[in-house]
Amino acid sequence: MTGDDRFGCNRHVTLPGPLRLDGGVLLSPVEIAYETYGSLAADGGNAILVCHALTGDQHVASTHPRTGKPGWWTRMIGPGKPIDPARDFVICANVLGSCMGSSGPASVNPATGRPWGMAFPVITIRDMVRAQAMLLDHLGVGRLKAIVGGSMGGMQALSWTATFPERIDAAVIIASTARHTAQNIAFHEVGRQAIMADPNWQSGDYYGGEPPAAGLAVARMAAHITYLSEAGLTEKFGRRLQAREAKSFGFDADFQVESYLRHQGLSFVDRFDANSYLYITRAMDYFDLAEEHGGLLANAFRASRARFCLVSFDTDWLYPTSESRSIVQALNAAGAPVSFVELSSPYGHDAFLLDAPEMNRVVDGFLRGGR
Amino acid sequence: MTGDDRFGCNRHVTLPGPLRLDGGVLLSPVEIAYETYGSLAADGGNAILVCHALTGDQHVASTHPRTGKPGWWTRMIGPGKPIDPARDFVICANVLGSCMGSSGPASVNPATGRPWGMAFPVITIRDMVRAQAMLLDHLGVGRLKAIVGGSMGGMQALSWTATFPERIDAAVIIASTARHTAQNIAFHEVGRQAIMADPNWQSGDYYGGEPPAAGLAVARMAAHITYLSEAGLTEKFGRRLQAREAKSFGFDADFQVESYLRHQGLSFVDRFDANSYLYITRAMDYFDLAEEHGGLLANAFRASRARFCLVSFDTDWLYPTSESRSIVQALNAAGAPVSFVELSSPYGHDAFLLDAPEMNRVVDGFLRGGR
Repeated sequence: MTGDDRFGCNRHVTLPGPLRLDGGVLLSPVEIAYETYGSLAADGGNAILVCHALTGDQHVASTHPRTGKPGWWTRMIGPGKPIDPARDFVICANVLGSCMGSSGPASVNPATGRPWGMAFPVITIRDMVRAQAMLLDHLGVGRLKAIVGGSMGGMQALSWTATFPERIDAAVIIASTARHTAQNIAFHEVGRQAIMADPNWQSGDYYGGEPPAAGLAVARMAAHITYLSEAGLTEKFGRRLQAREAKSFGFDADFQVESYLRHQGLSFVDRFDANSYLYITRAMDYFDLAEEHGGLLANAFRASRARFCLVSFDTDWLYPTSESRSIVQALNAAGAPVSFVELSSPYGHDAFLLDAPEMNRVVDGFLRGGR
Repeated sequence: MTGDDRFGCNRHVTLPGPLRLDGGVLLSPVEIAYETYGSLAADGGNAILVCHALTGDQHVASTHPRTGKPGWWTRMIGPGKPIDPARDFVICANVLGSCMGSSGPASVNPATGRPWGMAFPVITIRDMVRAQAMLLDHLGVGRLKAIVGGSMGGMQALSWTATFPERIDAAVIIASTARHTAQNIAFHEVGRQAIMADPNWQSGDYYGGEPPAAGLAVARMAAHITYLSEAGLTEKFGRRLQAREAKSFGFDADFQVESYLRHQGLSFVDRFDANSYLYITRAMDYFDLAEEHGGLLANAFRASRARFCLVSFDTDWLYPTSESRSIVQALNAAGAPVSFVELSSPYGHDAFLLDAPEMNRVVDGFLRGGR
């Protein structure tokens, strides 16, 4: 699938700034890279915003220009899929702070003419959402038939319903949470420390030189473990050795799981900016939707008119089912209509990105239910 | 408590080598640093060997000479404790490959007159055990009333009963496993890659220069998360902020859990050698007691005459109860007497090092039961 001809692909806009951030800073300019699929209906009633996860991007259903890989959620979005560009106008934007065309630490700071680096302001999930709202204004999209996201995409979807309740008719939140736990923060902090410990990081001022690839690879390796289940790792790798017949009694990657992790780390540094990793993990750690609403999560949803659909996976230990259940309880307390299902999968947190026919059936049924 | 006067403390011996390692190498010399508490009975029937964990040492019940801190298991060993030097002759040796006086990568390679570094041979848990057996020979200890260990100490205890079955009367294995899972290996691999990514590592040849402290700190931080339970982290830190009243919108340690982890990483590098961390984690990853015995764990215990006591903790996700249960099943299949209890604790894997009165009662009862 390619981007719709009317809108083209690899789209990019400089929003009429500035954007006032939660940290108090006015950010300008605000550039947002995005993709669209399908056409906006005359009544504007078919727009769906898809929000991506930590290291995701706007290429949700079309080939990634840098890696040449298919879009990251072609299982969910495409002809005959729950979200179908033949019917829906699908929008996906690279989040603020990222490195795929939207403003982030690798963007040029107009005050200096050089990349922002660590002078880029710290952002929040709500800041990402505000930038997306400006993009929708630019596209002439008033309200959303649905907002859909997994993992950090789910955080954005939750924040959308709280920040712009009048614009959201339905929200699908998959494998997500309303706040980062101490353990979530701890894993991210390990990743950040790994990046900052890399001498190439140079306090974030590495653009034009060697990036902190080794540190970023370690950060990715640590995070990647949290995306998989213990059972899934055992099933996929167990204690199986690499091509060798026996242990090497050395420090090469003897076990398949070691080789796999090293590959995950190395391939990641080719497509992601280390400073963006710092900023986006920080935004996730700061996220606590209840805290933004007087400490009571239900308060976040009192103005919402949306229907909600929550999906969790039983082997997800990053954002376990108990987190989704807390959100459901808050939605119930706020009187919001919500359907919730915990699906069974061996794949842990990553399940939402993989083949999950049940997830598709749930999302399809939910989106059709509103028509 | 100090080391027994008859034996003195901070003891050290050069064993009559060489030691043939599982990797095929002959290691010589083999130096072992150890501590003893109490006196060996005339009939030799009161000796207890305590085995330490990954970053532990021989100072199990007396002040650590470098940190000035009390011994790491004074809750288990001391007057009126389950293991009491007034009755028992207690031995604890720094494991082969470590850095507290036993031979390891920081020791001098006699062939070069310089530290071994990565020329030190890769070792296994069984190699550690063989070195301990040589130490017992040196001390005139034929058989052990009990071998006791938690975490990697439990691996050694298991390996002892399989390698020297005739020397062990009882074995206490706490919060341990008979083999590392893919997830266990993955976490260790992240730590090793963090160390090796530190330019100061210099392929292990950093002695005399700056050690790879930043990489080792990151490795420790990642590992430390696995020692604690999610619930324990939430209870201890939750999302509480540091001394500040609000988020900094920067990259300082805003959350208490970040500050705690950074402290864990930084304090570790003062007391541990990075290369030892590589070697000992490798030994743990290589550990698979079943594999050493034809693929069937029960085979490891067929020659054993020992009574076994296994203890797990319900919130330990590093070596969960299911791992202990597998060992118990193998012991049952081998016809070995075994008692097993899962204890409740909020502290995760680290519970065995903390105040755990129930664990003490279990170990006390088990050790008395054999008399």
